Amino acid sequence: MTTPQIHINSTRLREDFDRLSAIGATERGGVNRPALSEAHLEARRWLKQQAIEAGLTVREDAAGNVILRLESPVRQARTLIIGSHLDSVPNGGRYDGALGVLAGLEVLRVVKESQLILPVHLEVVDFTDEEGTLVSFLGSFAMSGKLTEEDILHPRGGEDVFRDGLRRAGLSRERLREARRDAQELAGYLELHIEQGPVLEQAGIPIGIVRAISGIRFFTLQFEGRAHHAGTTPMGRRQDAGVAAADFVVRFHQMVRERFPDGVGNVGQIDFWPGAFNIVPARAVIMVEVRAAEANQLRQMAEAAIELAHSVSAEYKVGCEVGAMGERLPVEMDARLQRLIRQTAEANGWKTMSIVSGAGHDAQSFADLCPTAVIFIPSQDGISHAEDEFSEWEDCLRGTELLLQVVLGAVQ
Amino acid sequence: MTTPQIHINSTRLREDFDRLSAIGATERGGVNRPALSEAHLEARRWLKQQAIEAGLTVREDAAGNVILRLESPVRQARTLIIGSHLDSVPNGGRYDGALGVLAGLEVLRVVKESQLILPVHLEVVDFTDEEGTLVSFLGSFAMSGKLTEEDILHPRGGEDVFRDGLRRAGLSRERLREARRDAQELAGYLELHIEQGPVLEQAGIPIGIVRAISGIRFFTLQFEGRAHHAGTTPMGRRQDAGVAAADFVVRFHQMVRERFPDGVGNVGQIDFWPGAFNIVPARAVIMVEVRAAEANQLRQMAEAAIELAHSVSAEYKVGCEVGAMGERLPVEMDARLQRLIRQTAEANGWKTMSIVSGAGHDAQSFADLCPTAVIFIPSQDGISHAEDEFSEWEDCLRGTELLLQVVLGAVQ
Repeated sequence: MTTPQIHINSTRLREDFDRLSAIGATERGGVNRPALSEAHLEARRWLKQQAIEAGLTVREDAAGNVILRLESPVRQARTLIIGSHLDSVPNGGRYDGALGVLAGLEVLRVVKESQLILPVHLEVVDFTDEEGTLVSFLGSFAMSGKLTEEDILHPRGGEDVFRDGLRRAGLSRERLREARRDAQELAGYLELHIEQGPVLEQAGIPIGIVRAISGIRFFTLQFEGRAHHAGTTPMGRRQDAGVAAADFVVRFHQMVRERFPDGVGNVGQIDFWPGAFNIVPARAVIMVEVRAAEANQLRQMAEAAIELAHSVSAEYKVGCEVGAMGERLPVEMDARLQRLIRQTAEANGWKTMSIVSGAGHDAQSFADLCPTAVIFIPSQDGISHAEDEFSEWEDCLRGTELLLQVVLGAVQ
Repeated sequence: MTTPQIHINSTRLREDFDRLSAIGATERGGVNRPALSEAHLEARRWLKQQAIEAGLTVREDAAGNVILRLESPVRQARTLIIGSHLDSVPNGGRYDGALGVLAGLEVLRVVKESQLILPVHLEVVDFTDEEGTLVSFLGSFAMSGKLTEEDILHPRGGEDVFRDGLRRAGLSRERLREARRDAQELAGYLELHIEQGPVLEQAGIPIGIVRAISGIRFFTLQFEGRAHHAGTTPMGRRQDAGVAAADFVVRFHQMVRERFPDGVGNVGQIDFWPGAFNIVPARAVIMVEVRAAEANQLRQMAEAAIELAHSVSAEYKVGCEVGAMGERLPVEMDARLQRLIRQTAEANGWKTMSIVSGAGHDAQSFADLCPTAVIFIPSQDGISHAEDEFSEWEDCLRGTELLLQVVLGAVQ
């Protein structure tokens, strides 16, 4: 393997990053670019302009994905996708997604400038709605053939905001799934992303090689007791759905930490009804999620959580119903690409570690279609989906340079 | 003590009860008569009509309290008040408050029909807003001189609904406190009420003699952690305000049951922020209340709860702030009247028990002004503030008959 001696242009990357960060910028240093919002579409227009100036071809597919392409002259060449996204969560950070798109753009520019002839087409894809403001992974699901009628008919972000977004972007709901591409034309998928967690920083290691993207199961638990008067009902005579739910929350966290140390769980939302000071809660509804890198463990975690819920509800003599179950299976990354990333990093003297991605990424849409891998760089304090999301610029540069070298290594 | 042989008219009381229950009746057998609502005012018009037909004098004071009066010919007679309320919580029950007013009306009618000359004036007072839809205990606080400027300026039910209610009832906000009466003119205060708890039913005892009305302290606790990404942040690295709050809820209930078996506590409301499935709660706010019959114990309970909150928040490495504290001190009932009630009941062969009222009653407004007592009858399953609130009619009759005899005994 001979890696040509070409490198990214760090000054140009920094200029790109600063200009992109100004689009939808918030007062506290973040960006507010929900999918298909005006700011998001402006970021996309800016991206396309950069690509055109760099001599890349630019197109948009039926799902709104923006595709920058460096064509290979080789006949029957397949396509290596470098993917990520320019949309953000509401009031999110400047790095999440944006870094991966800009790194891809820089890789294509450097390769084009170097006049290297590669045996694959290179594409940078800015996927629509990775953050799921409208429909989770709308763009990468559409391109990989995973977007369902259900996703389109019942957008999780609500009908109105979805319709407005489609209209703003000039997209047709009926045609979204036409973005689907044939697996036969794909050579591979690579993504550079911030970790969004504290593991790399804590370990003092600059490069994470994603081994798997966690699967997730989420469901609601509804505890049903009785709305007694809190002043007149002795505590031993109550059927307090609120205390039952609270006890579940505590024991669920203990259980995950003790029995599933490789997984994570969360209760992010809770609601008591009727919700008055002086009324014993008759009903408590909580939202539970569990995540794990292995499908088997994921299933076990969800089952254990539900078993715990039934056992807690029996103790408190309240009812318990499990509702609105959802699931996304764990996805393994390609072993050969992981090895290539590690070897390439080590050749540069950069330490790496294997890591599980607890967050979802567009990469997961492609893992069953072509060799797929994700490179992580450290996130300060593990903060993400927040305006103070931050990564050291040195780490951003290192990740982009590694991405370039891995692309070149992968297509040899 | 010679009790004249007069008794209540049970047929007439039943007719009254059924007619009153039809005013503001809900489909599920309850009543919806929030203070100064159209249904509440209609109930008051009906009550005044009954009193006029019975030859009682009727007036309304500056706080809207409806006062039915049977005047004594004795010079410088003082007034014995029989109080309760016709307002209900939204979609409440038919017995709460209404029974006490109807029982009082029946007592006055029977005494008038018997042509007994009593040394006191008898009054039935239907107090405004006992349930506190607008301002807690508006009517009895106004009459007893406890209504504050703050209560009037910042009605807990909100400004709009308060203004509308006052207008509907033809009341002036500035004049509400003119309803105040001089303690010198009061001979005593009696109230018949449903228990609203399960104690009497469980004990199989038909009459409860209230020893004290619990005091209450309530406050919010705000736990402050960090809004980490639930997928990417290992559980040991989180500052989860939600789990901290849940653990507090569980341990608070354990603590009250173990250390304060005579008191009660409740967490009726909880809120996680930002409240998303996949975000570790950065903030959890709960509403806590404690109740006890002794002021000292009440203070200790609140202090222990706050101490517990700080200890839990330290364990979870989250912040904790105590906010919006409120208090109503416990109120002791008159010992002589309690004895009279017990002796009168026993003379009829009715078992009694001494009981603490966990709920507030208009009676508490008068306990520092004149001898005050409350008689309870059983509530089925302890249910109250609900449409299926129910008491056996036999118990209602027994309570009313006892009230009559206690009135006659008290004024001897």
